[in-house]
Amino acid sequence: MKSFKPVSRDRGAKPSLVVGRKPVLEALADGKGIDRIFLQKNASGEGIEDIRRLAMAAQVPINVVPSEKLNGLTRATHQGVVAIAALIVYSDLQNVIDFCVSKGEAPLFVMLDGITDVRNIGAIARSTLICGAQALIIPDKGVGALNEEAMKSSAGALEKISVCRVSSLLKAVDLLHLNGIRVYTSEMDAPLRVFEVDWAGPACVIMGGEEHGVQPFLRKAADARFHIPMAGTFDSFNVSVAAGIILYEALKSRTYAH
Amino acid sequence: MKSFKPVSRDRGAKPSLVVGRKPVLEALADGKGIDRIFLQKNASGEGIEDIRRLAMAAQVPINVVPSEKLNGLTRATHQGVVAIAALIVYSDLQNVIDFCVSKGEAPLFVMLDGITDVRNIGAIARSTLICGAQALIIPDKGVGALNEEAMKSSAGALEKISVCRVSSLLKAVDLLHLNGIRVYTSEMDAPLRVFEVDWAGPACVIMGGEEHGVQPFLRKAADARFHIPMAGTFDSFNVSVAAGIILYEALKSRTYAH
Repeated sequence: MKSFKPVSRDRGAKPSLVVGRKPVLEALADGKGIDRIFLQKNASGEGIEDIRRLAMAAQVPINVVPSEKLNGLTRATHQGVVAIAALIVYSDLQNVIDFCVSKGEAPLFVMLDGITDVRNIGAIARSTLICGAQALIIPDKGVGALNEEAMKSSAGALEKISVCRVSSLLKAVDLLHLNGIRVYTSEMDAPLRVFEVDWAGPACVIMGGEEHGVQPFLRKAADARFHIPMAGTFDSFNVSVAAGIILYEALKSRTYAH
Repeated sequence: MKSFKPVSRDRGAKPSLVVGRKPVLEALADGKGIDRIFLQKNASGEGIEDIRRLAMAAQVPINVVPSEKLNGLTRATHQGVVAIAALIVYSDLQNVIDFCVSKGEAPLFVMLDGITDVRNIGAIARSTLICGAQALIIPDKGVGALNEEAMKSSAGALEKISVCRVSSLLKAVDLLHLNGIRVYTSEMDAPLRVFEVDWAGPACVIMGGEEHGVQPFLRKAADARFHIPMAGTFDSFNVSVAAGIILYEALKSRTYAH
């Protein structure tokens, strides 16, 4: 099998595509570098089952699409398969937790639930790195793409923190719980104030999308809720500003004892 | 003189234009509603001097441009003058200070120096309102336009806080000083930490642009500097996140005694 050619990381370039069954199989066998696979509806025959199997093993999401979508992505012969090369290398959540523990650091993670604005994602990644948090946890669907614009908004932070992409945020919360990590949500009506939270321990905060906030089943799975103080009742902070304030409080709490 | 027709505020619409000498004169005489005037280079004759005089009195900036610029803005007969209708009504800085004092509120203002990204401006306006600050101070040049996108990013906040547009930020700092308002800048190497600042008194914080920070002459005019704690030395927060953290600390300091 030929070696897979690493994709270009040029800023400002269009997303790099991997086109055709064999190239996509090779990229998957390489274990890295694939963000998402577009598979033609009813595609079958040589290689397709292998692509499905390897993609599942590598936690690469597959979107089943009509052939028109694939034809719109490329003029090359795609054989029913086009993959988008990843700009960042995703990390395994358990590995990141183990790594934090091995370094003697209390995990501080941010989970993104339904945040579609890539510039907000970039700004959150930037605050994550600045405040000493180790990882972003994102779902493989329903989140803004970690594309060039997100990378640019993050000022490079997306390449310096761990990004864990998971197929289910709820399962990720279970994994966090199994590892003794407390899960928080920010809600306006919570009695606890963000600066009263004990951020010294292992913690993960879930940030909800601007439209709908954190999904109810995730809110229910969280261990505690807090609110960010506001003057008056106008709307709420921009989600990246809210995440920045929370991470800043966590850093303060970890750096300067109460 | 005919009454000036208020401009439409439809979101998503292109900026409303006021075209021609008499309409622009009428809009200026109305005292409100003009964001900026584009005046053709070497324009002269009836009305031009009156437009200059009224624009100066109303603190409406005039950009002198070649005729091509005006022809690009409109196909109508512009007689060398096109004005952009304002989406928000600007406030006079001294009036805003007086109003705060009359209500028994300590002024808390944010000055924007060289922030060109309209989405950051919108997010800062949102945090300004949420944290109980009363006004944004912006220069009439070198700042992102308070356009539809800024309005949208502010989630309506730009219409609920006071926005003071000044021809000189340095003169505005003088005016703040004359009124007993302390002026702060945020700088990484400042020894004071943001949560150690006494935010209870009248205060204004200058936020610098993402590229160059606060201009040196403004930094010099400020009374005190502080920094936002960071873990490590990576870059800095997104400017709207930084402004959110500062305003949040000011609100906290004003709400919960040290």
